[in-house]
Amino acid sequence: MNTLQLIYEGKSKRVYAKDEDTLVIEFKDDVTAIDGLVKAVAIGKGVLAARISAFFFKLLNDAGIKTHFIEYDGFRRIIVKKLEIIPVEVIVRNYAYGSLLRRLPIYKPLQKLEPPLLEFHYKDDDLHDPLVLEEDLIRTGILSEQELDFIKSVSLRVNDILTKFFESKKLKFVDVKLEFGKSRSGEILVADEISGDTFRVLDENGNHLDKEVFRRTKDAGLLLKAYLRLAEVVGVSVDGVFSSY
Amino acid sequence: MNTLQLIYEGKSKRVYAKDEDTLVIEFKDDVTAIDGLVKAVAIGKGVLAARISAFFFKLLNDAGIKTHFIEYDGFRRIIVKKLEIIPVEVIVRNYAYGSLLRRLPIYKPLQKLEPPLLEFHYKDDDLHDPLVLEEDLIRTGILSEQELDFIKSVSLRVNDILTKFFESKKLKFVDVKLEFGKSRSGEILVADEISGDTFRVLDENGNHLDKEVFRRTKDAGLLLKAYLRLAEVVGVSVDGVFSSY
Repeated sequence: MNTLQLIYEGKSKRVYAKDEDTLVIEFKDDVTAIDGLVKAVAIGKGVLAARISAFFFKLLNDAGIKTHFIEYDGFRRIIVKKLEIIPVEVIVRNYAYGSLLRRLPIYKPLQKLEPPLLEFHYKDDDLHDPLVLEEDLIRTGILSEQELDFIKSVSLRVNDILTKFFESKKLKFVDVKLEFGKSRSGEILVADEISGDTFRVLDENGNHLDKEVFRRTKDAGLLLKAYLRLAEVVGVSVDGVFSSY
Repeated sequence: MNTLQLIYEGKSKRVYAKDEDTLVIEFKDDVTAIDGLVKAVAIGKGVLAARISAFFFKLLNDAGIKTHFIEYDGFRRIIVKKLEIIPVEVIVRNYAYGSLLRRLPIYKPLQKLEPPLLEFHYKDDDLHDPLVLEEDLIRTGILSEQELDFIKSVSLRVNDILTKFFESKKLKFVDVKLEFGKSRSGEILVADEISGDTFRVLDENGNHLDKEVFRRTKDAGLLLKAYLRLAEVVGVSVDGVFSSY
């Protein structure tokens, strides 16, 4: 393996520069909750998150959605296009859950949101990623109206693809957080990851196949079990998940 | 004066039942800041707030905007139509200021917002009146789409009337908080008050003629001075302001 230059390390990922146009995202086994206050290690979770992300990026690419994904190394890394990240999290909600219920407790838990509810949050740790209005994004110059419309439309298409996928597995797709970046040519692509860390999915008994398990129990073992179930349902191999490099 | 039944006492107002369809709002001299943590008494402020509110409600009524205002008792009370209050604060912003800058510090202080920015907050002290999306209001059943559209349109008209009024006095109308209520017949009217407690207005030197003075200095005397200047500019009498009953 060539030596890569680490350019960023976050709570669950490292990002390396590969060449001028390409980055490597490495998924760590670290898991955190409550803005990083609770930390644990779930051996195998990094590989599973990388593999599941790669699976969904391929699914989206095959459906004609442009993403930053180029290829998967088979282990805990994905190779992606280098983008200028747009400092916005898009949350697409199919059911009222999590932070939506805390933000506005007059929503009913798991109330169906049809059509899906779109939320935008400004990415800023110090501000705790506040909810923002579409108007805020335009007036502060973060996005043009056209870019915002494009991102909304892509977010809903991504949600639609993922909803149909999980429905075919008899699972309820609750919500998903998406991030976007802009290529040098100004094209907007889906970025970040698409895994149990960024979406919530429930089985028929209301069990989570996602990171919510850790947020609730703070138990890395239970989180790993949920991720293994998710991998199984999604149909990705769990071979070599517990190896290291 | 007949005995009135007190039905609500807030930080700056008392509300009495007059008859089945009518309430009396009494403006207190109490002033508070930081969610009620800082308290003071500014003798005369209640009368000024009542008088200024009455003035602006008349201005709006004359312009064809329907409000809850019926009449002013000449002192610290206004008589209003009894409404079912809609638990939403509408903030119309002409310049980026105050909570908008705290919420999203990438706005520039006093950045012109053209057209005005509309914000909706859900009225709930425990939740600290959180920002909500228009979609939230509809999906939780607080407002129908038609009601929301009506409230947006009236809010912008009110803002337009107040902006033009203050422009004619060489003042900058920064923002205003509006509340609405529904009459028994389902009509939506502008409610609450319209005073230096609910709008912000700046003179050419950037001095406030509103409650911001108290929020910043915690000085009831300075607040009263700002309110006296506001009354003078608005053109309402300050006679009897310091009397009591």
